[in-house]
Order: sequence, then C-alpha cells, then structure tokens
Amino acid sequence: MREQVQKLFNECMTGATDEDLLIMKQLLEGIQRKKNSENGSIIGGIFAMDRKMTDGNLEVSIPISPVTYNSLEIVHGGVTATLVDTAMGTLANMMLPEGYGAVTTNLNVHYLAPGVGERLTAHATVVHQGSKTIVVDGKVVSSDGKIIAHSTGSFFIFKKNQ
Amino acid sequence: MREQVQKLFNECMTGATDEDLLIMKQLLEGIQRKKNSENGSIIGGIFAMDRKMTDGNLEVSIPISPVTYNSLEIVHGGVTATLVDTAMGTLANMMLPEGYGAVTTNLNVHYLAPGVGERLTAHATVVHQGSKTIVVDGKVVSSDGKIIAHSTGSFFIFKKNQ
Amino acid sequence: MREQVQKLFNECMTGATDEDLLIMKQLLEGIQRKKNSENGSIIGGIFAMDRKMTDGNLEVSIPISPVTYNSLEIVHGGVTATLVDTAMGTLANMMLPEGYGAVTTNLNVHYLAPGVGERLTAHATVVHQGSKTIVVDGKVVSSDGKIIAHSTGSFFIFKKNQ
Amino acid sequence: MREQVQKLFNECMTGATDEDLLIMKQLLEGIQRKKNSENGSIIGGIFAMDRKMTDGNLEVSIPISPVTYNSLEIVHGGVTATLVDTAMGTLANMMLPEGYGAVTTNLNVHYLAPGVGERLTAHATVVHQGSKTIVVDGKVVSSDGKIIAHSTGSFFIFKKNQ
Repeated sequence: MREQVQKLFNECMTGATDEDLLIMKQLLEGIQRKKNSENGSIIGGIFAMDRKMTDGNLEVSIPISPVTYNSLEIVHGGVTATLVDTAMGTLANMMLPEGYGAVTTNLNVHYLAPGVGERLTAHATVVHQGSKTIVVDGKVVSSDGKIIAHSTGSFFIFKKNQ
Repeated sequence: MREQVQKLFNECMTGATDEDLLIMKQLLEGIQRKKNSENGSIIGGIFAMDRKMTDGNLEVSIPISPVTYNSLEIVHGGVTATLVDTAMGTLANMMLPEGYGAVTTNLNVHYLAPGVGERLTAHATVVHQGSKTIVVDGKVVSSDGKIIAHSTGSFFIFKKNQ
Repeated sequence: MREQVQKLFNECMTGATDEDLLIMKQLLEGIQRKKNSENGSIIGGIFAMDRKMTDGNLEVSIPISPVTYNSLEIVHGGVTATLVDTAMGTLANMMLPEGYGAVTTNLNVHYLAPGVGERLTAHATVVHQGSKTIVVDGKVVSSDGKIIAHSTGSFFIFKKNQ
Repeated sequence: MREQVQKLFNECMTGATDEDLLIMKQLLEGIQRKKNSENGSIIGGIFAMDRKMTDGNLEVSIPISPVTYNSLEIVHGGVTATLVDTAMGTLANMMLPEGYGAVTTNLNVHYLAPGVGERLTAHATVVHQGSKTIVVDGKVVSSDGKIIAHSTGSFFIFKKNQ
C-alpha cells in the first residue's frame, strides 16, 4: 500500500499546475488536521473547518477553494449542506448532557446565492430543545456578508452506549 | 509550493497507519479522477462517485470509507446530502436542452438509518419538469438494500451565458 | 348563542349569491360529516375529505371549490398542505399497532403547479418505518392526472396514554 | 339551492351542542369576514385570521377552537401549515412592486410542540429577496410564548397579467 500511495503521489506531482498543488496541499493538511484532532473527521479536515462558539451561537467556517467547487467552479451545494449540517449538528450535541448524542433526522436547505468569495461561515442557533428532538436554524454567509443559504435541521437525541 | 506539498506528504507518510494510507490513496485517486474527467469536481473525485443512467433514473454511488465518516465513524450526513444532491442535480441537468443549466434551490433530506456497509447509492427520479423548475426525488440505499435517506430537490433552470 | 347563530345565518342568506350558497352548503355539510364520523375533524369535514386505501397506499381527495381557494382563486397552498399532511398522517397511524399514535414532526411540500380542476387527490406511501419514526411520501394530483405537489413527512411514534 | 342550505342549517341546529354552535358561529362569521374583505379567502375567514405588520415582520394570528382541531383535539398540523404559509406568503407579496405576485414553491415546517392555548400567532420575516425568489422564515408561537412550529418558505416571483 505504501508503494501504491507513493506512486500515486508522484503521478499527481508530475505536471501538477499551481491549482493542483493547492488542492493537494489542502487535502494533505486535512489529514493532518484530523490527526491533530483539530477536526473530528476527514471531511472536516479537508474542508479546513474552523469553529467558534459565541453567546449560544456556533460558527463554522471554511475557505472557498478548488476543493469546494462543483463543475461550474462555484461552491458545491453538497459542501454548503455539509458545512451547515456540521454547524447545526455540533451545536445540537453541545446542548446535551454527557452520555447523550444527537443525529440529524431532517436537513432542509434553501440555496439563495452562489457561494463565492474567500470564505463561507455557517451560523447555527437553537430554535427548540425538547426531550427527544432539537431543532436548529443555520445560515451560511459569504465573506461579504451575504446570506447564501438558509437551513433548518431536526436532530434526534439518543443515549450513548457506554 | 511544490516543496511544501512534498514536505506535507512526507509528514503524512511518516508513521501512517493502514487507515491513513487508505485515506491518502482515496484522496490522491480523487485528484486523478478529476484530472481524467471521470468526475467533474474534486468533491466527486475524492468521494469516488460513479454514475449510471437507467431508464430515466440516475444512480450515483460511492464507497463507504474513512473519507466519508463523521466523528462517530458512520457516514457523515453532509456526505449523504452531497451524494443525493449530486445525483438529483446531475439528472436535472440531463433533462435540459443544450445551453441551459439547473441549480439547486431547495434540498430536503430525511435521514432514516445510519450509512453503513460497503457502498451508498443515490437513485434520482424526476417528479416534475416545468419551464422554470425541475423537482427531483432521491433515495439513498446501502449495499444491503436498505433506504438510508429520502430526499427531494428543487432546481431552478437558467440559460447559460455563451 | 343559538340566537346569535340564527342571526348570523340570516345575515349570510340575505343577498347570498350562488357562490355564497355553495360555500354555506359545503361548510354545513362539513359539520354533518364530522357529526356522522365520516371525518375525524371539522377541517376534514369542511374540505369534504374522502379516503380510500389501496395496496398499502392511502388516497385522500377533496373537491376544488371556493372553500379551498386563496385570494387568487386557485387552491390555497395551506389546503394542499392540509390534504397531503392528512393523507400521510392517516397512513402513518394505520401502520401502527393498537395503543400507538404518530404525529407530524416535519412536513416538506414542493408546489409544482396551480391546483385547478374538479378535485385534488393526495396519494401517500410509506418510505420508511422505524421503531421511533415513520417517513411518508405524498403526491397531490389534480383531476387531469397532473402532479401539483410533492411532499415528504416525518412522523414521530408515541405510546398513547390509556 | 337556498332551500337546501336552509334545510341543512335546520338539521345542524337541531340538537346542536354548545360546541356545535361555536363552530357554526365561527364558520358563518368566516363567510362574513371574506365578504367584508377582512380576509382575502374563505380559509382566512373561517380560521378568523388577523394580521399585523410591525417593523418588516408580519404577524398573522388565529384563535384555537374546535374548527382548528384534528381528531386528537389539538391544532391540526395542516392548520398550522396554512397559518404560517399565509403569513410568509402575505409578507412575500408585500415586498413586491405593483404588478408582481409571489407563489409558494417550497414550504418546510418543523412541528415542535402541540398547538394548545388560546391563540396561535405566526411571525414571518424575509431571509432573502432576490430577483426571482423570496425566502421567508416563519415561527408559530402559542399564547404562552412557546414556539410550536418553525418554518421556511420559498416563493417564486411572477409578473401579473393585466
């Protein structure tokens, strides 16, 4: 396997454009971010998700780069969905006492404008916390302050096995 | 930049576990898939999306691997959303005459069961095609035939600039 | 109260147009439908909901009339939502053993075409039945066979108090 | 027709309980509200919808009564959907210049708590106004201040025929 990975890397480096190198850099840094526990998943790592808690709101942001593009070179709708689901789900889990977790049961995203500029930031706010479900509101904002997506998520609360 | 990428790669290889190597392999293959136009985006490449058209339905499938995991080691809800959005959006675009494109305006996903097993396959079917919007139904099924997510997407039709 | 109702009725009858009489007829018949247990609610009665079970699918249909109109004289989006929620919720409740009930936790409706013609029929089908939730798909079709709305609903299962 | 309506009314009055009389009162008043243009539709009239504009927010409220009940004697999910769709749609239409209208293309409702108490009030706020779509956020609150539903709606802007 090591040789195969080394060979693949060499092939990718041969004739790599500046954009290719940027992509490789972001992906490899993503692996490191996961390893250093800066992110809890490879997905979080390769999108370089940063998070910040402020007054009951959670913000998760990512840089816009070729890694996040769809084939039209704007942010892939799936990346926006992943970003806002992560922000809402992380916040939902932070609301729970130890020993409990929350998983997404419904995700609804209205796409309002193309994701362009330097970064996207998802802002999550709890709308309702019940004994069985948490409903969270999420807005995704571009660097120039424009709301590019509006989302709601419903999360089911479960007791973790220990 | 080349030196930086080479250095990052060496760091990732040092002490890499089998899982780390698998992840690096999938990510580097993703870059190649994009380069060879097997996928239209880096996202499509690193998730190793394969697509197949059958009788008006479009199927897009991905292997389940550490690249697709969330922090609980089941498929990240954002990956499932990305998969089904890609299947529905690709189908929507295939329905249009040349010179037209379709972008997601609303994505709704009900998560039904954890994404486990070998692969996930999204099946997309057109529900409605109007002059301005297309509505598509998407189901995500695991290798054992279980529906793990049910989705609907609304797509806005636009005339491409030429 | 009786006198007040009688007075109101007389006022409504004075100068009532044919359309007014049709509306009064449908509303009063709705009260009777509820009384005769043809419908379980006043809402069901005044919309004159009829239901039919066929092969695991549930159909609920209503006549289109001034009672169902919005201010533009096409079917009010809320009426379509009520119709499809009723069909999906009734089906969800039919899937459960005695002593259990299901309530809507999420309703998503894509409106595809204006509700016109003689009747609207909602067709509900179970997509997923778990131990805690049921997800149902609902389509609303007009008399000429056109799908005018596509919906999904998520229902939470609870044990009834006895 | 007049005789038929008179006969129906007499039948409804015979043996009417206090609840029946209340229902008849609300339905007949609804017809009058529509006639007096207090409401733009019969639906709005029979639910006795009242609206109030405050600082860019629109509030629409209804009394909770047997007219709004489902078969479990809590507010029918369809009524809540109708209320919030009306508030969001009315606001969307108020944002437009003369000669333009907006119709719902997507309605998503998270039901958070049973609708109980005296009144329900839907609060609508514009999230995004584009050239082709308006996205609105809607919250439904009970008399005691509890959010019982959280909704988003997407509206398509069209030019009215003149």
